[in-house]
Amino acid sequence: MKKGCPYGTHRVIEPIGVLPQTAVKIDNSMEIYDNEILIDVKTLNIDSASFTQIEEQAGGDEAKIAEIMMGIVRDRGKHQNPVTGSGGMLIGVIEKIGPALEGKIDLKVGDKIATLVSLSLTPLRIDKILNIKKDIDQVDIEGKAILFESGIYAKLPSDMPEKLALAALDVAGAPAQTAKLVKPGDYVLILGAAGKSGMLCCYEAKKRAGVTGKVIGFVRAGKEAERLKQTGFCDIVIEGDATQPVDVLNKVLEATGGRYVDISINVVNVPNTEMASILPVRDDGTVYLFSMATSFTKAALGAEGVGKDVNMIIGNGYTKGHAEITLQVLRENETLRKIFEEVYA
Amino acid sequence: MKKGCPYGTHRVIEPIGVLPQTAVKIDNSMEIYDNEILIDVKTLNIDSASFTQIEEQAGGDEAKIAEIMMGIVRDRGKHQNPVTGSGGMLIGVIEKIGPALEGKIDLKVGDKIATLVSLSLTPLRIDKILNIKKDIDQVDIEGKAILFESGIYAKLPSDMPEKLALAALDVAGAPAQTAKLVKPGDYVLILGAAGKSGMLCCYEAKKRAGVTGKVIGFVRAGKEAERLKQTGFCDIVIEGDATQPVDVLNKVLEATGGRYVDISINVVNVPNTEMASILPVRDDGTVYLFSMATSFTKAALGAEGVGKDVNMIIGNGYTKGHAEITLQVLRENETLRKIFEEVYA
Ligand SMILES: NC(=O)c1ccc[n+]([C@@H]2O[C@H](COP(=O)([O-])OP(=O)(O)OC[C@H]3O[C@@H](n4cnc5c(N)ncnc54)[C@H](OP(=O)(O)O)[C@@H]3O)[C@@H](O)[C@H]2O)c1
Ligand SMILES: NC(=O)c1ccc[n+]([C@@H]2O[C@H](COP(=O)([O-])OP(=O)(O)OC[C@H]3O[C@@H](n4cnc5c(N)ncnc54)[C@H](OP(=O)(O)O)[C@@H]3O)[C@@H](O)[C@H]2O)c1
Repeated sequence: MKKGCPYGTHRVIEPIGVLPQTAVKIDNSMEIYDNEILIDVKTLNIDSASFTQIEEQAGGDEAKIAEIMMGIVRDRGKHQNPVTGSGGMLIGVIEKIGPALEGKIDLKVGDKIATLVSLSLTPLRIDKILNIKKDIDQVDIEGKAILFESGIYAKLPSDMPEKLALAALDVAGAPAQTAKLVKPGDYVLILGAAGKSGMLCCYEAKKRAGVTGKVIGFVRAGKEAERLKQTGFCDIVIEGDATQPVDVLNKVLEATGGRYVDISINVVNVPNTEMASILPVRDDGTVYLFSMATSFTKAALGAEGVGKDVNMIIGNGYTKGHAEITLQVLRENETLRKIFEEVYA
Repeated sequence: MKKGCPYGTHRVIEPIGVLPQTAVKIDNSMEIYDNEILIDVKTLNIDSASFTQIEEQAGGDEAKIAEIMMGIVRDRGKHQNPVTGSGGMLIGVIEKIGPALEGKIDLKVGDKIATLVSLSLTPLRIDKILNIKKDIDQVDIEGKAILFESGIYAKLPSDMPEKLALAALDVAGAPAQTAKLVKPGDYVLILGAAGKSGMLCCYEAKKRAGVTGKVIGFVRAGKEAERLKQTGFCDIVIEGDATQPVDVLNKVLEATGGRYVDISINVVNVPNTEMASILPVRDDGTVYLFSMATSFTKAALGAEGVGKDVNMIIGNGYTKGHAEITLQVLRENETLRKIFEEVYA
């Protein structure tokens, strides 16, 4: 049996020397190396930015969506959207564990897991697309995938429906990072607050900011505002368009009585929202960019252009304990669990 | 006198609601608002990518270059190259300060400054083009410009040539951020260490990390390695290719005796170096991405993909005191000043 690199570089076809995520094409043959795990895939949970792009390109047509998805995997050996660069995650059952890993990890054949590394670096083969759930960006398939030694995963919990766990785990990085960043008394602005990561972030932000802090949820439309208000996680809910930075700034300042926020968290799923995340933040404050539609140059040059000395953080999808923190939110909070069950499960 | 928005949106003609940098056309009439500064412009320092494009379009002809430049400013109200999207910076003398700013800033009429915000957002009027210096992308003009309240600038120092100051100010963000980030005892990896920002960062990093820390300069080729070694800023100089992350990781660990670094700083000017910045950093360490070739998604998904819990920061071109910090480096260090004089002035 062949020996693999912990990061999966042994599967990179092009260009040589890079990691699987950077690669244009990786080897998706399903014969495992000594330190790999073979997964029998049940469901793909496509990244929201990616799914939105694919859906638009397909004009909403399901057969076209399926065709585009099959095409991506055929070309690249992984489900990495060539436009957005992003992937998603999957649910599957452990089919085989490489001998170099056996006994060293807490998995056995037959366990049902969600992978917590992006599909953008996961060797994947799709044999058949069974069902496309457009409203929740999930696609049931027949197929196989490979998890590398450095790959992270979560065993699906037994106390909640699978799809519920998956929906939450998909964005586990955001609430866990929010929990680390927000301090008591902070004013926190969350753009895209009624979305999936948005609501989890609002909950964590309120928990950490406490009574002396304020959580400000920014959402697009009336219906979303209602839903968010019902949760009670936000002190203030603002409606508007996150692509209009000065309008966002003015609305925030009006709501806070002129105080700039300490932290903004961007969990919107459309481009051109960098400046709306930067302008409302105080000097030396933090801008946490979780949206995959973020442009590095727009953020870097944009902040310079308005002389804003803010700390701009790239939303790392991983932080220690992120799966546990996120599942715990759904256990702790009845309201959020209900909303997640209605919408995503 | 009319009241202006700090970010200059009051001058945006089209499209409404965006910031001046994003705007297609801004108002360049030279009657100032209450919070604006009027500058008597002496020299435009055109962004290198922009100047190259204009020069090519003009077939190298100076009269044609002048015509194209006048045309850009006539159409847009600012010198934002419609092909490259970029601007540059300017040198000029303060002519008038809006009453809302007077006494609040450290400028007086007659001061000579360099603007540190891009020409791509600066209202500009060119009355006459006096002299085009093709070899250094500089154009002497008669004209006026407006600096917004949020715009940043540096007073030109009297103790060094203007061109030397400009070269350093161009990348002022990187060494200033390095100064803020690096703590005594830190192991710091600098990728692209022999470049313009690279050498400034190495100097600042060594100053802050001190005798108990280590600065590791990563460079591409033999000649650059020599130049960097001569400065004495780095404890270790490694040669290699920053687009090969696993190779970079192995070389760094070999050099440190297996210790991961606390901070990596990326000042390379080519794409696909995100993972080389991420892999060598310890858990909870910091990855500071200054390169404009950085991809947001490659960094975010890449770190997640290998389960790395690191803090990834977008290199903000601005931080408080960045101009002073950077000019001070050239004053403090003879070696660096000599290299900068030879190469850039
Ligand atoms: N860093 C990571 O590892 C990671 C992991 C997972 C996801 N993400 C990213 O996080 C983002 C959010 O993901 P999600 O699953 O939470 O998506 P989501 O549920 O679709 O939420 C996005 C929210 O943004 C709102 N929005 C869209 N355009 C807006 C605008 N112009 N103004 C105000 N609000 C607007 C949406 O409102 P409407 O419903 O009205 O459109 C929606 O509520 C995505 O970009 C995704 O790629 C990152
Ligand atoms: N965030 C901001 O506001 C801001 C402001 C200014 C500049 N920047 C960015 O900072 C970066 C550096 O700017 P600079 O003026 O310092 O550029 P520079 O002087 O050209 O330095 C870049 C260095 O990277 C090295 N390099 C290129 N490819 C490499 C590879 N594969 N492996 C190892 N080293 C490699 C270059 O070596 P060779 O000479 O051998 O190619 C050079 O020494 C640019 O991307 C620029 O856009 C950002």
